[in-house]
Amino acid sequence: MSEPTATMLQSHPDPLADLEPGLRARTVDRLMQCATVCTSCADACLAEESVAELRRCIRLDLDCADLCRTTATILARQSETDPSVLRATLEACIVACRSCGEECRMHADMHRHCRVCAEACELCATACDELLRDLATPVGGT
Amino acid sequence: MSEPTATMLQSHPDPLADLEPGLRARTVDRLMQCATVCTSCADACLAEESVAELRRCIRLDLDCADLCRTTATILARQSETDPSVLRATLEACIVACRSCGEECRMHADMHRHCRVCAEACELCATACDELLRDLATPVGGT
Amino acid sequence: MSEPTATMLQSHPDPLADLEPGLRARTVDRLMQCATVCTSCADACLAEESVAELRRCIRLDLDCADLCRTTATILARQSETDPSVLRATLEACIVACRSCGEECRMHADMHRHCRVCAEACELCATACDELLRDLATPVGGT
Amino acid sequence: MSEPTATMLQSHPDPLADLEPGLRARTVDRLMQCATVCTSCADACLAEESVAELRRCIRLDLDCADLCRTTATILARQSETDPSVLRATLEACIVACRSCGEECRMHADMHRHCRVCAEACELCATACDELLRDLATPVGGT
Repeated sequence: MSEPTATMLQSHPDPLADLEPGLRARTVDRLMQCATVCTSCADACLAEESVAELRRCIRLDLDCADLCRTTATILARQSETDPSVLRATLEACIVACRSCGEECRMHADMHRHCRVCAEACELCATACDELLRDLATPVGGT
Repeated sequence: MSEPTATMLQSHPDPLADLEPGLRARTVDRLMQCATVCTSCADACLAEESVAELRRCIRLDLDCADLCRTTATILARQSETDPSVLRATLEACIVACRSCGEECRMHADMHRHCRVCAEACELCATACDELLRDLATPVGGT
Repeated sequence: MSEPTATMLQSHPDPLADLEPGLRARTVDRLMQCATVCTSCADACLAEESVAELRRCIRLDLDCADLCRTTATILARQSETDPSVLRATLEACIVACRSCGEECRMHADMHRHCRVCAEACELCATACDELLRDLATPVGGT
Repeated sequence: MSEPTATMLQSHPDPLADLEPGLRARTVDRLMQCATVCTSCADACLAEESVAELRRCIRLDLDCADLCRTTATILARQSETDPSVLRATLEACIVACRSCGEECRMHADMHRHCRVCAEACELCATACDELLRDLATPVGGT
């Protein structure tokens, strides 16, 4: 599934050499997967009998889905990247993934969707964090 | 990569039984993949020397990416679905995928990103079309 | 508030002459306003004691917000427009606005946010419908 | 135009009292306006004869539009806000608005759309910055 993303990023006429080949593509795919999982978790929480106890989970799922979609979109672009914009976006996304992951983790015993969502958020935060550290050295920027 | 989506959709407390299990999940993943590929194709076109000849391609890539992201998000929700909204959204997405795919196909010999994008758009339009036909019989709706 | 949108659309080097000047700008603004109102209504419903009875309202609010945002984005673009994509997008948005507006209307006596949201959805559907009819005659397209 | 947003935010059953009444609504509207203007500026740049010299402007316009849309959506939600997510999102949006505004300012003499866009970005960055400082004192949480 990540093949098309890697192929696309390498077919850019002047691909960025700021990252280990493949890391950018894998992170884009992980972000899109996390966006889907968070959207689905908010939707499943809404259908639970205990919906009133899952308000915070729904809210954080929605924010995390929105930020993951936007971060994936920005990260998928390689033309004329402003490193400071990319970095601040990744940082916001990591905060949202961690916050959402921690909340979902608290409901993981009760709800399978929260368990899967907690895992997706943790993987996504880790991938963004790794990419952020790789970006820090060579690129420079603000 | 499509596993988490299928797992999530099945963990809904009252999953929709309107579609062959797995078809909804695969279509969501295909839509998200197409959104990424179209975003990346617009970005690669922008960096080409011949950018002035790729204006229509960039425009259609952007529209298609936006519609695929929104369609994936709406399709990933199973609570209280309004079939008429889902159907009209899928129809709009198919029009965008076909239009973008045809344009990219015209540049496929020159640009690898357009070739990959044409394929992603065609696969996505086909998946949405299949899902739309599956929805037509059992669900009813408007 | 709608001034900047009209100014922007007229500053395009080759603005579309397919619509009464100002109608496109007003519709873009109305779509963005409806996206904000639907996002806010979903959020207010989630905080109500009676959240369990508002599930359908929340779901339709979320779908409508997503479609309005995407429709506004596509409508704001004038370069190399594919009329068939624009039309199918507007049609999907109208279906979502009508569905969401009807649901919100049912809760309008109980919840002020649903009353305001019903009005925003109705105004938005009407604006999109008017624009769709204006597009039908001169542009041609599919 | 900003009336519906303020009305919606005040109709929440438990509105946040973290900000001067109206500031949140005005900032949401400003973000949505900036998203529209940046989308339109990217589209107008794409149609210019000098498109090849406007690549950086188009790229930053697209990123800024995506971040403004997401920030407006997150800011419009008042239920169970995580202040650290809101803050990091606002910070990313400010970086994008400043970067896009500076680039557009460089083309402001040549292109009216860049002049209007530079203004919208500067107003939006200022509004987000003011809101961020207002949030800093009473809310706490990181």
